[in-house]
Amino acid sequence: MNNCFILKGTICHTPSLGRLEIHENAYTVCMDGICEGIFDEVPPEFRGLRMIDCTGDLVIPGMTDLHIHAPQYSYIGTGMDYELLEWLDNRTFPAENCYRDTKYAEAAYAVFAEKMKNSATTRAVIFGTIHRESTLILMDLMEKSGLVTLVGKVNMDRNAPSYLLEPDAESAAEDTRRFLCEVQERRYVRTKPIITPRFVISCSDALMEELGTIAAEKKLPVQSHLSENPDEIEFVKQLSPESRFYGDAYDRCGLFGRQSPCVMAHCVHSTEEEAQRIRDNGVYIAHCPASNMNLASGIAPIRKYLDMGIHVGLGTDVGAGHTVSVFRTVTEAIQVSKLYKRLVDPGAKALTFAESFYLATKGGGSFFGRVGSFEKGCEFDAVVLDDSRELLCGSEDSESRLERAFYLGIDRTGIIRKFAAGIETELYNE
Amino acid sequence: MNNCFILKGTICHTPSLGRLEIHENAYTVCMDGICEGIFDEVPPEFRGLRMIDCTGDLVIPGMTDLHIHAPQYSYIGTGMDYELLEWLDNRTFPAENCYRDTKYAEAAYAVFAEKMKNSATTRAVIFGTIHRESTLILMDLMEKSGLVTLVGKVNMDRNAPSYLLEPDAESAAEDTRRFLCEVQERRYVRTKPIITPRFVISCSDALMEELGTIAAEKKLPVQSHLSENPDEIEFVKQLSPESRFYGDAYDRCGLFGRQSPCVMAHCVHSTEEEAQRIRDNGVYIAHCPASNMNLASGIAPIRKYLDMGIHVGLGTDVGAGHTVSVFRTVTEAIQVSKLYKRLVDPGAKALTFAESFYLATKGGGSFFGRVGSFEKGCEFDAVVLDDSRELLCGSEDSESRLERAFYLGIDRTGIIRKFAAGIETELYNE
Repeated sequence: MNNCFILKGTICHTPSLGRLEIHENAYTVCMDGICEGIFDEVPPEFRGLRMIDCTGDLVIPGMTDLHIHAPQYSYIGTGMDYELLEWLDNRTFPAENCYRDTKYAEAAYAVFAEKMKNSATTRAVIFGTIHRESTLILMDLMEKSGLVTLVGKVNMDRNAPSYLLEPDAESAAEDTRRFLCEVQERRYVRTKPIITPRFVISCSDALMEELGTIAAEKKLPVQSHLSENPDEIEFVKQLSPESRFYGDAYDRCGLFGRQSPCVMAHCVHSTEEEAQRIRDNGVYIAHCPASNMNLASGIAPIRKYLDMGIHVGLGTDVGAGHTVSVFRTVTEAIQVSKLYKRLVDPGAKALTFAESFYLATKGGGSFFGRVGSFEKGCEFDAVVLDDSRELLCGSEDSESRLERAFYLGIDRTGIIRKFAAGIETELYNE
Repeated sequence: MNNCFILKGTICHTPSLGRLEIHENAYTVCMDGICEGIFDEVPPEFRGLRMIDCTGDLVIPGMTDLHIHAPQYSYIGTGMDYELLEWLDNRTFPAENCYRDTKYAEAAYAVFAEKMKNSATTRAVIFGTIHRESTLILMDLMEKSGLVTLVGKVNMDRNAPSYLLEPDAESAAEDTRRFLCEVQERRYVRTKPIITPRFVISCSDALMEELGTIAAEKKLPVQSHLSENPDEIEFVKQLSPESRFYGDAYDRCGLFGRQSPCVMAHCVHSTEEEAQRIRDNGVYIAHCPASNMNLASGIAPIRKYLDMGIHVGLGTDVGAGHTVSVFRTVTEAIQVSKLYKRLVDPGAKALTFAESFYLATKGGGSFFGRVGSFEKGCEFDAVVLDDSRELLCGSEDSESRLERAFYLGIDRTGIIRKFAAGIETELYNE
């Protein structure tokens, strides 16, 4: 097998929130895709395995991107003067409509897949569009990308332009079932489907109930958006007056973590009651700080969620976020937590680098199982960074080097090797 | 002369705040370093001039960085878990101490100058350290960099480790006068000195008075820091109880725009009275959003300052900011203005892309005179961007392309030509 080997380097990971461990000149071992731990010397039982010597380079777990919209890469970094609902109408919906054309989807998704492949991301939870065939094209490309991903065909049957709506709940459910069959036929190894109601605004109760049934039946995870923007939340209140809070509208339909794993993007404005339900149901929060700035949504109270014991990971939320770089998201999560402390709640301690690093690795990675650190038994996801071009004085300690690698965004040029679930990706860097 | 030529391309600039003009397939003319305006066709009097044909590329004014610390590039992106005063003690002061060694300064400033040269920045207002010789080395390098800059030898005589203090106000003033003589002897064309009290905390009244006298005598501009962080402001209150507000401590010593141009970094927490004095004295504000996030300072109320008619430009504030990219600062200024609106003052309209673009060009550029647009009579500062690698669908309008160039940070790889005051820089890109 290709995926038994030893990797040597400056190994950095966070086995728990904020506990950054750095092992200089250390070894980690991958056996059939599973990590055997970190060692100062190669244990006898692994001697003879292929040695990948990256002495001096930083070795970190792959990044997990818990929330990204593949079709939105095509208009990334434009239309940023809008807020959420007008941004959807003016940018997102017209752009997503292009994906009814599979030729367009092939070209645009190829660009997206190439970007993801060359990023530090090894795991991603991805939105497609409502289009079944195009979403299968996306999955084909992700399967080849080297990443391990969950990809959703989006469902929506109301409150969007008619060109982007499924005709009704039944036919949407039928199309989704057909999509799931076709996925199964393709026998992907690294690419799995995820049930994806866009958000309550664009999904009728009937549609959400159908999706809840499918998720339960097929034991599939669920992704959606939650409590992102005040106008959005107000609209949900009108649409679902029987729900106690926004997230309750999902929960009533079996789409909120009770029966299958669930990740909700944003949670900027969750009420106390919603936060408690999130925790009680084991729902993951995908924290997307760039998006929340760009769409003027606000700042999610991540410190509070962590203190409550809620699972939190990071999301780039392309295209409301303007880069696929989770490195950037790590620094942005720290930055906005500092502003939150300064402007909203002086008692909410800012995130440290080590904490944000954890969110990007084990925090979000655990949505995929044992993923995101080099502890024994974890799936082997690793990124090797050459930061030598940025070693300005030659005397930096490894912790400073690691922090700088994130702040300077050396994932754009400094990734030299990348492994996801033990398999190495061939890289092309900028 | 080398600096008479025609430049053809997609010419973008903001002659006034928020008024973005894009001229497709247009021409701009540089005569002896001065811009003749933008033309749809080359006017007869300029025919025969050398034509630089960048058809299809984006042509923008050079960026002005109104606040950057050259010595801090050496530890950029590290120690980011600190707030201002502890960050100074733990990171900045020990690092700046290295510059007493001119060999170190030569090596470290060479890296900085190379970064600046390859950035989109054509104008910068720069802090050195207290060290006269090292600051001259920095100026030598900046003179060769192609940028037009103002560089300050820093003054400080209190409240810092003794290794980084000048012994007293008189000797500091003497050393500064000597520095200014030596600068004059070097006959720089593009590099001028700027009086640089670090901030009130580290400058005694006596020192500030000396500096005020020198600034008036030599007709030199002034740079410093103002109202960045609550702890800092509290400390200034104790140190200067006779001042009505932080900025008044500068004003009492002739260092606040009355007698010579003045730029103050940050102004995150300026009182109403301070803001009025800033406006009345014509003081420039260098808005440094990344720094203000990284050091948990807060968000400067830029919309208010603009509405008051205050001059505002952007600063990267390396090393509290973690990149020399003013492109990035443009997007961050927009992002934090959105958070300010959401979290602090719903009445404060967020900055648009066109407004933030203006701040980075004419807004800050005007500190250097007629700089920052392609209007007739402006000094000719231009950057040409090749964004073809990012044209995803091939059908983007130029305004979207421009916005995306900033959000995607194509200044890292896409700058193909750069001119400052009419002189072209030879570039090396990542």
